[in-house]
Amino acid sequence: MVDNPFYGPETQGDYKLHDLGNLILESGETLRGAKLAYRTFGTPNAEKSNAVLVTTWFSGTGKVMQDVYVGPDHALDPNRYFIVIVDQLGSGVSSSPQNTPPPQAMAKFPKLCIGDDVRAQHRMLTDLFGIERLALVVGGSMGGQQVYEWAVVHPRMVERAAPIAATARISLHQQVFVETLKEAITSDPRWNSGWYASGLVVREGMDRMARIVATLGRSTQFYQEERWRSVVGMSSLDDFINGVMKAYFEPMDPNVLLCEMHKWQRADVSRHAGGDLAAALARVEARTMVMPISHDGFFPPHECEADCRLVPGALFRVIQSPEGHMGLNGFEPGYMEQVDRHLNELLAA
Amino acid sequence: MVDNPFYGPETQGDYKLHDLGNLILESGETLRGAKLAYRTFGTPNAEKSNAVLVTTWFSGTGKVMQDVYVGPDHALDPNRYFIVIVDQLGSGVSSSPQNTPPPQAMAKFPKLCIGDDVRAQHRMLTDLFGIERLALVVGGSMGGQQVYEWAVVHPRMVERAAPIAATARISLHQQVFVETLKEAITSDPRWNSGWYASGLVVREGMDRMARIVATLGRSTQFYQEERWRSVVGMSSLDDFINGVMKAYFEPMDPNVLLCEMHKWQRADVSRHAGGDLAAALARVEARTMVMPISHDGFFPPHECEADCRLVPGALFRVIQSPEGHMGLNGFEPGYMEQVDRHLNELLAA
Repeated sequence: MVDNPFYGPETQGDYKLHDLGNLILESGETLRGAKLAYRTFGTPNAEKSNAVLVTTWFSGTGKVMQDVYVGPDHALDPNRYFIVIVDQLGSGVSSSPQNTPPPQAMAKFPKLCIGDDVRAQHRMLTDLFGIERLALVVGGSMGGQQVYEWAVVHPRMVERAAPIAATARISLHQQVFVETLKEAITSDPRWNSGWYASGLVVREGMDRMARIVATLGRSTQFYQEERWRSVVGMSSLDDFINGVMKAYFEPMDPNVLLCEMHKWQRADVSRHAGGDLAAALARVEARTMVMPISHDGFFPPHECEADCRLVPGALFRVIQSPEGHMGLNGFEPGYMEQVDRHLNELLAA
Repeated sequence: MVDNPFYGPETQGDYKLHDLGNLILESGETLRGAKLAYRTFGTPNAEKSNAVLVTTWFSGTGKVMQDVYVGPDHALDPNRYFIVIVDQLGSGVSSSPQNTPPPQAMAKFPKLCIGDDVRAQHRMLTDLFGIERLALVVGGSMGGQQVYEWAVVHPRMVERAAPIAATARISLHQQVFVETLKEAITSDPRWNSGWYASGLVVREGMDRMARIVATLGRSTQFYQEERWRSVVGMSSLDDFINGVMKAYFEPMDPNVLLCEMHKWQRADVSRHAGGDLAAALARVEARTMVMPISHDGFFPPHECEADCRLVPGALFRVIQSPEGHMGLNGFEPGYMEQVDRHLNELLAA
């Protein structure tokens, strides 16, 4: 286990841990003493019909969802909804390689898939809150992969689904890209097959990974227009790479990111229908709004649109953001305004 | 020096070497005994008005330009033109890290820039062939960077210019991307700061680089449609990554690729006008046809179009190719047909 304050309450704010006990994983392995980190906002109404589940993305935690997506000035308004933000497994805050005791610590932490997240979240929502209907499941990127999984696996429970900047089945292009990220970390000899005393010793591999994320995670327009000046207040390309991209990942745990990459690389709802994506997405009963980001290099709009055509009655709303995939963090003016407008439209439906 | 048969005539076919003697580089350093590899097709006419210069791209040599772009069935027809294909410096065939004797061998090979190529090529064309006018300068990717350099530095000598899949100034996005490629190689401890007995010992770093090239070098559509089946005859994603991407780079020399990356990352005609790209491109007198590839992740059409607007009278023709940047290799049906049509239009102008 690695004591990393980045994943503690001093950085992540107020969250609670729900103990699931043993969680049998899709792989057949059991994650013992599985814990989900969550935070709630608002109050369930009498019919428990106002619950909203918010999921998290690669490298992100419930904190960024709380800070950027939830509040009285947003569609996800705690005055109207009972909002549950849940950290994905392996996020560093929920059960993860660096916070799980032996014999499942570090490199021995089990391999997970998105289906494990949804099973864990389903147990938490039903056991802890008695929730049987979700007015909305919403999340971006890997959070969107969880949304698709929810909508396919629990079609009657999910009334509305909003996968943002995500596809229902990982593309082959993303499989290759994620592998380059994994190789950037695992090729650092100090990663040492996952056994290190502190994530900081794997800084070289983490830095290499951060730069690769920068190439597809931001659009060519973001660079062409030097938008780091206005969007994140950086003074040059190096300042941006060091001060934003590398600095963002530096406090994180390498095994946490690798754990998430494994899931990211394999997300695929078609496995519920023998590999038939159309058949899997045809099961969705939720009113679905597919929301790609216009300049996304991870989950480009044309791939999201292909999914959208397979979901009965799904709406398609493109969020305009020259920042690209990492626009998800909400730094760009106008980004959250669009998200809120689209989510309000969906919530009113 | 490394004896690598990949860069010899058994692989590269018939080429000649032109000895330039000492080449003073833009950096101030001198490349001693500089040699340019070239091959010619066709015959100069009496006025020497039919000369065409063909340049090479990253990892490519004159051989691929000969095989794919030149022939009686192409716009670059040896029956009409005197075609000179010249390998860029550092290509492995022209003077390069692995074929240059001490004290400039291997890691001590000087850092080059695109301006050095154009100066070397200019000397060769004038000294060896007495060429004073070029009916056309054409090349793709780094070859296109050379085309822009030619058109800006020798505006009266270049009658027509066709930069394919290239920009006149490297984008900041490409600077970051190329850095990820360099880091993939240089992080391999067996690269050993450039001192290795054979490029094959740096296979891990080279393989990591090959995978990163695969992410932006081919389009998301290429993966989505599994075009490796039809375009290059591969049976799966792994088969494609191993059998095409890694196999393509495996016989190459790591220092050669790093030498080219250094140039690729710095190509910028605006340095001739104090950083003012518009002023530099305004000097171009060549009839110019800017030819991006529709799905190019390296030099996207919108960036090429921005250059095009700055070149007086330039034409803009997008080559449709879902393969993306590496479509340059001409495997895709219809690719060369478009290139030939556009070049014929330009040559007729």
